[in-house]
Amino acid sequence: MPNNPVTADRRHFEDLAVGEVIALGRITVTKEMIFTFAREFDPFPFHLDERAAKASLLGGLAASGWQTAGLSLRMLADAFLTTIASMGGLGFSDLKWKRPVMVGDSIGGTVTISALRRSRGHPERGIVTLDFDIRNQRAEPVMSMRLANLIELRDPTLPITEAAE
Amino acid sequence: MPNNPVTADRRHFEDLAVGEVIALGRITVTKEMIFTFAREFDPFPFHLDERAAKASLLGGLAASGWQTAGLSLRMLADAFLTTIASMGGLGFSDLKWKRPVMVGDSIGGTVTISALRRSRGHPERGIVTLDFDIRNQRAEPVMSMRLANLIELRDPTLPITEAAE
Repeated sequence: MPNNPVTADRRHFEDLAVGEVIALGRITVTKEMIFTFAREFDPFPFHLDERAAKASLLGGLAASGWQTAGLSLRMLADAFLTTIASMGGLGFSDLKWKRPVMVGDSIGGTVTISALRRSRGHPERGIVTLDFDIRNQRAEPVMSMRLANLIELRDPTLPITEAAE
Repeated sequence: MPNNPVTADRRHFEDLAVGEVIALGRITVTKEMIFTFAREFDPFPFHLDERAAKASLLGGLAASGWQTAGLSLRMLADAFLTTIASMGGLGFSDLKWKRPVMVGDSIGGTVTISALRRSRGHPERGIVTLDFDIRNQRAEPVMSMRLANLIELRDPTLPITEAAE
C-alpha cells in the first residue's frame, strides 16, 4: 500500500505513545489581536472596549475564550500536528476556561497524548486523544480541553486489538 | 440592588425558559475566509491549498472546524447573546464536527436552551446551557456542541431551588 507522499516522512499512528508530552510555544496576546478576533467572532464589550471591560466580571480587557482555543490549536499545529500524518480533527470535549487571558498575557503549556485507538471501520486510520493544559506567564491554568484527531497508520494491516468509532 | 446599566434593558436569567429555540442567521463560507482563518489558526493543506485539499480525506477545500465553531458563536452572539445580560462563557462540551464545510457552503441552524441553573456561590449569576445544531444549505448537520454561559439575574434575592457550580 503506497504511503501518502505528503505525509510519508511524518510520524504515524505507530510512532506515538500514550503519555508523550508535547511542549507548546508561547504567544503573547496584544490589544490589537483581541480587538480583531472579537470583532469577527465574539463582539462583546469586555473584548472590545477597555472601559466596559474594567466594569465587567473580567475586570479588564480580555481575549475571547475562543481566541485562546484558536491560539492553542495553532501552537499544537506548529509543535505537533504538522509533524504527524494528521487527517484532521473529529471534535473535542470538556473545554473549560479557567481564568481570563488579559491583554499582555502570554499563553503556552503542554499537550499530553492520553489515548490512542484504531478505527474499526477504517483500518488505515487511528484516533489520537490530546489533553491541553494551557497556562499563562505565571503558570496559572487558563484553559483545558480534550481534542480527538485522526491520524494515518503507516501499516493498516496491523491487527486491531482495541478499537473505537 | 442597582441593575448594570449596560444590560438593564436586556433579557435576564428570569426571562429565559428551557426549550426556547433561537434561530441563527446564515453565513456563506468563501475561499478567502477559509484561507485567512487557516493561515492564522489551522495551517493545514486541506484548508490552504485547493489541490492538496482534493487529495485529502475531505475531498476539497474545507473550512477549519474551528472556523465553523467561531462563525457559529458569532451567529449566536448576533441572534441571542447580545440581547441577554451575558457575563461571558464558562466552557463547552461535546463539540462534534459531523461533515466538512466546503468552500461556498452556507451554515446556519438553531440553538436550544437545554438547561437553566443558579450559581450557588454567586446568587446574582445563572448558567444557561445552549445546544448548537449547525447545518449546511442542504439541512445536513455539520456541527453540534453544548455551551455553558453565565447570565445575570435581575433579582438575586430569588430563592435558589436548583443550583450548580
